[in-house]
Amino acid sequence: MGFFITFEGVDKAGKSTQIRLLAKRFQEMGKAVLCTREPGGTPLGEEVRELVMKNRAENIADETELLLFSASRAQLLRERIWPALEEGQVVLCDRFADSTTAYQGYARGMDLAFIRQLNQFALGNRWPDLTILLDLTVEESFARLDNVLKATAADSDRFEIEGRRFHEAVRNGFLQIAKENPRRFVTFSAAKPVEELADEIWSAVSRRFL
Amino acid sequence: MGFFITFEGVDKAGKSTQIRLLAKRFQEMGKAVLCTREPGGTPLGEEVRELVMKNRAENIADETELLLFSASRAQLLRERIWPALEEGQVVLCDRFADSTTAYQGYARGMDLAFIRQLNQFALGNRWPDLTILLDLTVEESFARLDNVLKATAADSDRFEIEGRRFHEAVRNGFLQIAKENPRRFVTFSAAKPVEELADEIWSAVSRRFL
Repeated sequence: MGFFITFEGVDKAGKSTQIRLLAKRFQEMGKAVLCTREPGGTPLGEEVRELVMKNRAENIADETELLLFSASRAQLLRERIWPALEEGQVVLCDRFADSTTAYQGYARGMDLAFIRQLNQFALGNRWPDLTILLDLTVEESFARLDNVLKATAADSDRFEIEGRRFHEAVRNGFLQIAKENPRRFVTFSAAKPVEELADEIWSAVSRRFL
Repeated sequence: MGFFITFEGVDKAGKSTQIRLLAKRFQEMGKAVLCTREPGGTPLGEEVRELVMKNRAENIADETELLLFSASRAQLLRERIWPALEEGQVVLCDRFADSTTAYQGYARGMDLAFIRQLNQFALGNRWPDLTILLDLTVEESFARLDNVLKATAADSDRFEIEGRRFHEAVRNGFLQIAKENPRRFVTFSAAKPVEELADEIWSAVSRRFL
């Protein structure tokens, strides 16, 4: 069996950069690595991602969004992640079940007990071996986001145009989930320089798996 | 408040024909009627329907299918059905939550307790006022299906090519759900001539609502 590491955090925390750097370290050791993301990661999942993320005339109900993300997750696990783990690969996933708990549960206020059951169902009770939370204050997140928006105003999606209060609730949600799952989570300050953060993550990962 | 009637049954039981005939009777009385279907009925829902129903290289996991249908249902209720009921319309829906219980629960063997919770969540605990079950033996269902397939071989979708045992399990699932919900369900033999069946349905609906 391989091992399954998920990256969580608010937008612009640097998850995809750190995934790329961690994947590179594993690959340099000769380990096979699957890098994937949520929602998406499969043909069906990417179609679901497109459905949910695009701005549309229709207002997507919170319940719909929750169930679509869970569907994409169920498919990604069965089609890609579990087979890769069986083959002994390292799987790195950009967002996973904890994003649902943070965004739909803590930030949108949907029933946390139902979300827990839904996650258990989609996951078949197999949680990640390690979850890396990149924690970023809302001020820092918005400062990074502003720079992006200045460059590509047209590309802001439904989530990036949500307000500061929403992002604050997401951040606090992640911190709460990490507190409740101390064996699975390691939390890092995402405000650090990229290479320094990458070294800290590698050190935590090595201690756990190597 | 209007009233909300769902039609359930195996493929080729005549649900869409009976919905059309019932809608006509209501319209002749001057009632506004919304006819809709599952999965689908909204722009997002129709895209989800297309995702699930088309034959694709990828194998859709049972869990994924269940969650996609539930997402489509959550959206349809909030975007179309609840607003129509608020306006006093009659809503007729071709398949609904009971199809999930029959197909994914009874026929595919997924956890019935979880499906019940998922339905409650998607429905916000507001179940249909009346459910009309058109019951058809599997032999009759397949005889009707054969005639269709001879005419349009290319159009068979993923569900119609499932085997007889699956259809038998679906039929028995519906009968079981009807038995457990005697106040909500009225069951009819779908083998009867179309007009005779339409009269019987109208008579049951009138007793309940007029």
